[in-house]
Amino acid sequence: MESKKQINRLYTPGPTPIPQQVIDKMSEPIIYHRSQEFRDIFARVNKNLQYVFQTKQSVLTLTCSGTGGMEAIIVNLFSAGDTVLSVNSGKFGERWGIIAKTYGLNVVEIKIDWGKAVTVGQIIEELHKHQNIKGVLLTHCETSTATTTDVKNISKVIKQNSDALIIVDGISAIGALEFYFDEWGIDACVTASQKGLMMPPGLAFIALNDRAIKACQLSTLPKYYFDFKKYLSSLLSNDTPWTPTITLIKGLDEVLQMIVDEQMENIWKRHDHLSYTQREGLIKLGLKIFSDKPSHSVTAVYIPKEITWEKLNESLIKKHNITVASGQGEYFGKIFRIAHMGFCHNLDMQLVLDALRRALS
Amino acid sequence: MESKKQINRLYTPGPTPIPQQVIDKMSEPIIYHRSQEFRDIFARVNKNLQYVFQTKQSVLTLTCSGTGGMEAIIVNLFSAGDTVLSVNSGKFGERWGIIAKTYGLNVVEIKIDWGKAVTVGQIIEELHKHQNIKGVLLTHCETSTATTTDVKNISKVIKQNSDALIIVDGISAIGALEFYFDEWGIDACVTASQKGLMMPPGLAFIALNDRAIKACQLSTLPKYYFDFKKYLSSLLSNDTPWTPTITLIKGLDEVLQMIVDEQMENIWKRHDHLSYTQREGLIKLGLKIFSDKPSHSVTAVYIPKEITWEKLNESLIKKHNITVASGQGEYFGKIFRIAHMGFCHNLDMQLVLDALRRALS
Repeated sequence: MESKKQINRLYTPGPTPIPQQVIDKMSEPIIYHRSQEFRDIFARVNKNLQYVFQTKQSVLTLTCSGTGGMEAIIVNLFSAGDTVLSVNSGKFGERWGIIAKTYGLNVVEIKIDWGKAVTVGQIIEELHKHQNIKGVLLTHCETSTATTTDVKNISKVIKQNSDALIIVDGISAIGALEFYFDEWGIDACVTASQKGLMMPPGLAFIALNDRAIKACQLSTLPKYYFDFKKYLSSLLSNDTPWTPTITLIKGLDEVLQMIVDEQMENIWKRHDHLSYTQREGLIKLGLKIFSDKPSHSVTAVYIPKEITWEKLNESLIKKHNITVASGQGEYFGKIFRIAHMGFCHNLDMQLVLDALRRALS
Repeated sequence: MESKKQINRLYTPGPTPIPQQVIDKMSEPIIYHRSQEFRDIFARVNKNLQYVFQTKQSVLTLTCSGTGGMEAIIVNLFSAGDTVLSVNSGKFGERWGIIAKTYGLNVVEIKIDWGKAVTVGQIIEELHKHQNIKGVLLTHCETSTATTTDVKNISKVIKQNSDALIIVDGISAIGALEFYFDEWGIDACVTASQKGLMMPPGLAFIALNDRAIKACQLSTLPKYYFDFKKYLSSLLSNDTPWTPTITLIKGLDEVLQMIVDEQMENIWKRHDHLSYTQREGLIKLGLKIFSDKPSHSVTAVYIPKEITWEKLNESLIKKHNITVASGQGEYFGKIFRIAHMGFCHNLDMQLVLDALRRALS
């Protein structure tokens, strides 16, 4: 009953558990960032980040949350008055639109019911209606609804119909869902450290192709800390424009070597399998999956009528030290979310199902 | 000779050494930030941050470097077209002006030779010349020159002559140099985690008084990630608008309890004594101090003619695993800088002096 004496079992869609060897690496004495030792680490990190995004292009490392990374893309690639198409199918898709409006962009929004995914047809329709769209803002995994967007095929049709930049929020996707930055023709993609990358929060990563870098030259929005030109220039010498979070970069170096060892294809398959196992088990327990296009990184489930979110959550925490996530916005109290992202394996999913069975019986 | 087998001896003006109990705290399993457990930690952190700044006002915690925190102050407190007075006596004072210009502010700049400090008279003169100054941007310790600004008295004369907001970069000062946010009438002050606060880089802290919060209401510059209104509103429930760097916040909780135990007055005295010991020892070695108003947190020294920066640095690193910092900008190769900030004690200073004596003989 005294759950704090049990292992900390964290199944929230960020942060996700951190492997012990990564914690050990972050516990080493801190080093100076303007040193060859740091540049050697950062060179390896930058190379391995390209592997994670499946790109030969530059990947920037920013000290901020994922939201900071989203804002950085908007202020670097666009100018006030530019029109962007934004898909709002949950809290994070909505955020793309809010940030863009904050900076004076015209936002054409496709509003989708929570739990559903935007279709290729809806994207084409808006591109034809608005010929001046400079960028399309997508969310690969909408964390609030645990729903996947078909970024691969949507990217294909955007290219056939428009010159718009294809921008992807990959925050709960990179390191969990299949993703090919170069092959799919994505122009900019942001992710954060505390999701598929098995790290503490605090870092955002942004992959940019040549078209995106050209767009940076045209942007007139003011920026300083987030100025991509400064990061791109520092990257040439494996340096950073501002003092980086050295501790996290050291952990990241370890994490990325784990990822390289396991290989992206195997990681994607593992997440595919984890999500399948989880959904199948939940359905067997009589629970109903919330999303039409469930993500491989997180599963959203309706809370059954017999129990409240508060009771369910209390039972999981108090009895088993298991933390899952509530629903967000108007879905608070209606759904809950179980992450299976990053450092997560089959037995974890079995354990969550067992705990849920006890809580519900 | 194989220095890597020696203790990592870091005397750079950020990052500074991290106490072992702080590393241990950061090595605990990561927790969910939307939990009572996190809010309890963050409540204690917020209270102790007020103690560090010597204020009853709000202190915000941002995930970014100190530069991000400086930018956050500019975009929240001012609007394009506002006039600010900026003191440029080194790399970081210069940065205040650059950030302000980036956002369309009119910058009146007082340019001071490196190693010298702005005088009360120079500030008064500019305030009289430009009646429309809305903010004065000061640097308590100019890290590039290891020089202290007399913030206490300058703040007094600003108040006697103007309604301008008094903004202080306390990045290499807070936790090392005497500072009373409320008593001195400072309106906004920023610091970062990797200096006097003995933490890894990655966090910026911003103290704001009522006048500064009122200025936030008037500012028309666009912002989202750095929007103080969002942080102030979250702070009411000891929450954060975006996913915080949970790991660093846990370390910060430990660090702040160490600071409360030692007490600010004692910490300031320790730094005063460290800097005095260091200067006295350097002079005995025949070296010349660079700054007219040397800081208690870092000392800048001329490199003697007998040796180059490269040779000196190599000797310290290779023989003793000691890292100090080079000069910046046009002072690269002319001066070097030894930090004595945060988790630093008398024997450390003796050790650096011993190593320098060997390197120079």
